[in-house]
Amino acid sequence: MSDAIRTLENTVLAQIPLARAMQLRLRDYDGDRLTIAAPLAPNSNDKGWAFGGSLVSLLTLAGWSLIVLKLRALGSACDVYVQDSAVRYLAPVWDDFIAQARLAEGESWETFASTLAARGRARLTVDCRVPLADGADACTLQARFVAISKP
Amino acid sequence: MSDAIRTLENTVLAQIPLARAMQLRLRDYDGDRLTIAAPLAPNSNDKGWAFGGSLVSLLTLAGWSLIVLKLRALGSACDVYVQDSAVRYLAPVWDDFIAQARLAEGESWETFASTLAARGRARLTVDCRVPLADGADACTLQARFVAISKP
Repeated sequence: MSDAIRTLENTVLAQIPLARAMQLRLRDYDGDRLTIAAPLAPNSNDKGWAFGGSLVSLLTLAGWSLIVLKLRALGSACDVYVQDSAVRYLAPVWDDFIAQARLAEGESWETFASTLAARGRARLTVDCRVPLADGADACTLQARFVAISKP
Repeated sequence: MSDAIRTLENTVLAQIPLARAMQLRLRDYDGDRLTIAAPLAPNSNDKGWAFGGSLVSLLTLAGWSLIVLKLRALGSACDVYVQDSAVRYLAPVWDDFIAQARLAEGESWETFASTLAARGRARLTVDCRVPLADGADACTLQARFVAISKP
């Protein structure tokens, strides 16, 4: 895992108590897709499967981390905030799980970066999913983020 | 606080580790509106305000608890699941916070209960919000839940 991912994971775990309680781990990042993992035990609900709050937290953090890592790679000093999201809970998750994030259809890093450079802020929509072992979606989240350049 | 609320709070805290980590407390319930509270410290983010995952977890649990308490009052043995939700993050939350849940416009407990009795399952949409001290919304969630009668 690269230094950039390790640094972000350390920051998230150090500064967000709930991320620590969830025991999340940044797992893979290839520049366009990011994967975060979490164990079931600290994230279970009263029925013994994954708690909806844990799923949506992991999905949102996956999207946020994807943008933060890209901006750091571009050397851009920004704050990144989630603005809104749509979540669908499709199937229960009975095991440790991962959340994967990537750009939504029609979005591009180039447009995002050029808008940010020109205006000091830019929006970006990210698609995130928690897959089951068979590849089907257990939970999906589409979220819109805004990045704002630091003064 | 009534026994029903206390019992549900105990169940949530005992069986959902993340709810325990969030230190949530069921605060008020009048049959139509429910309020859950959480302190900022265990729910803060890297910027020092409320973590989005904590906000959406509290909002979703408020909606779920509203339906569970109503069904228990009606003597109906059901499981309740969240199906989908739309979340808007409108303003940062710098203090301890609450989430309020109530039925969405156009929904009725009577229709919900009669559908459930007739078909063994029924859907219900709930509006939830985290208000700021001045009454404005910091975060809103509209979520659709399904209740399924236990065999």
